[in-house]
Amino acid sequence: MPHSAAANVLVFKTDKQGIAMKVYQGVMLTLEILVLIVKMYASWFYCIYRFFVPPEPKSVSGEVVLITGAGHGMGREMALRFGKLGSVVLCVDINPEGNQETADMIKANKGKAHTFRCDVTDRDSISELAANIRRQVGEVTILVNNAGVMPCKPLLDTNEKEIRTAFEVNVLAHLWLLQTFLPSMMEKNHGHIVAMSSMAGVLGLRNLVPYCGTKFAVRGMLEALHEELREDPRDFSGIKLTCICPYIVDTGLCKNPKIKFPSLMKIITAQEAADNILDAVRRNYSEITIPSSLYYINQMFRIFPRPVPLHLKDFLDSGLEAQ
Amino acid sequence: MPHSAAANVLVFKTDKQGIAMKVYQGVMLTLEILVLIVKMYASWFYCIYRFFVPPEPKSVSGEVVLITGAGHGMGREMALRFGKLGSVVLCVDINPEGNQETADMIKANKGKAHTFRCDVTDRDSISELAANIRRQVGEVTILVNNAGVMPCKPLLDTNEKEIRTAFEVNVLAHLWLLQTFLPSMMEKNHGHIVAMSSMAGVLGLRNLVPYCGTKFAVRGMLEALHEELREDPRDFSGIKLTCICPYIVDTGLCKNPKIKFPSLMKIITAQEAADNILDAVRRNYSEITIPSSLYYINQMFRIFPRPVPLHLKDFLDSGLEAQ
Repeated sequence: MPHSAAANVLVFKTDKQGIAMKVYQGVMLTLEILVLIVKMYASWFYCIYRFFVPPEPKSVSGEVVLITGAGHGMGREMALRFGKLGSVVLCVDINPEGNQETADMIKANKGKAHTFRCDVTDRDSISELAANIRRQVGEVTILVNNAGVMPCKPLLDTNEKEIRTAFEVNVLAHLWLLQTFLPSMMEKNHGHIVAMSSMAGVLGLRNLVPYCGTKFAVRGMLEALHEELREDPRDFSGIKLTCICPYIVDTGLCKNPKIKFPSLMKIITAQEAADNILDAVRRNYSEITIPSSLYYINQMFRIFPRPVPLHLKDFLDSGLEAQ
Repeated sequence: MPHSAAANVLVFKTDKQGIAMKVYQGVMLTLEILVLIVKMYASWFYCIYRFFVPPEPKSVSGEVVLITGAGHGMGREMALRFGKLGSVVLCVDINPEGNQETADMIKANKGKAHTFRCDVTDRDSISELAANIRRQVGEVTILVNNAGVMPCKPLLDTNEKEIRTAFEVNVLAHLWLLQTFLPSMMEKNHGHIVAMSSMAGVLGLRNLVPYCGTKFAVRGMLEALHEELREDPRDFSGIKLTCICPYIVDTGLCKNPKIKFPSLMKIITAQEAADNILDAVRRNYSEITIPSSLYYINQMFRIFPRPVPLHLKDFLDSGLEAQ
């Protein structure tokens, strides 16, 4: 039976090869895991180091900064600060009066500003905006998706139009603006996207069911875009993303804020918020909360099952009453 | 100077009262914080206890269960399981053939099923659906918002229609259905809302920028609704909410899954996913991931700054390739 014997030898050989392969794979996997652990510790320590020694703020002089909703509130305050730091500020708003005021304030401070009227929920209006900007100024290098609306009432009292407008302005407009202004940033591997989310994009809050939906969406989209750029074989490391999660900012959006411990979670002025945002952008932070204490409180308590932090939420007992 | 002396006495008295008031407030706050700590520990220990001794699954016999997208995939599998457990199943789909098949399969198993054709992105179609259901069956007591679409490509390659459809089906339809079927649940303080989010609603993933937006939104809206019901002065403790975050389920939605360690994160069949979902609903869990291991991995790593868990994500190296 020479044939059968040869077959046996073959099987034996294959077995041996199989075992060797498994051992090799096991060793490689162990090494990979070790490298992973070292990498994670290293970047953790680096983050802790960066907490105590933050990176130097970058210059935004000469950057072309598009800000939606620049006609009032945080949009205006950001526009003023970018103008003061030497950026070319493109003030975009659906309301021309407030927008012109912002531009005039920048120019009065010897800054460079242009105004554009645009309904950011309308793609044609955005295409026209993009064409005008290219003709008059050049390529946008910093995009601040700031325009937003906030219906604040129980879900059952919110009508279809309010819900649709919230998603159009707070979510879809971000995507249209990204699709319009990201390509030129990718070409030059240089740019910065700033998106306004909210603490209502981190935690569910009463009277804000659709609004929480829009602000969670912004956070998710920015995190997904971060991964899409990071995992692309081309190098997009020069494009930075910053997600802003303010708690209650006094811009007229929040009608009936309720705050139990003002020293811990006070109502923030648009000026303070803009200072925080400019700082986060210039230091390339990927996500900030305003006030920053909420970031750490949230990170710390998210590790527990949901009923545990809810007691803390009840204790702090703040939120927005219906309009 | 009798007047001035009297004034001084008054000031002194007021000071004393002020100090007494401050001491009183300090003592009360300290007590409140102690109570808070005890409550948080108690509910944490209760959660740990419940991890080892899960609550008994509740009966869903006799419940009127509306399932959107019941014509195939997870929707069908959930419908079959509710049917087997004695629920009256309302199969809702835009595609009548698959939907009828599901209902026939339930009836072949001696279950109760009705079919309704409905475009859940159209409020008029939903109003008509609600009227038909009330006439033919009665009030919905379990609402399973399952219908969903998934555009899977880089953001710059996704067109306006795909983005709009994703938000209409995955997000807005949830809100229209909630506004339609929640009021009767609130009247009886009895009901259950099941919403399909995704691991893409927990983590940002490449090729899924708008999809991540929709699935983050679902999670945010459910968390906000949870708070809205919980903080309402009326008692809505009989209405339960369950948010489902599956990783990659083999239902035809995911075209090109990429998985490095199948033993850790395998592609889940629609059957397995439905088993997990039914279990979560019957035990009133507020949020589950499928597989459940991802829940703990995510909770554990979320406490670290973002660059740290990204190394783990790169190591696991799985995701969806563009279509």
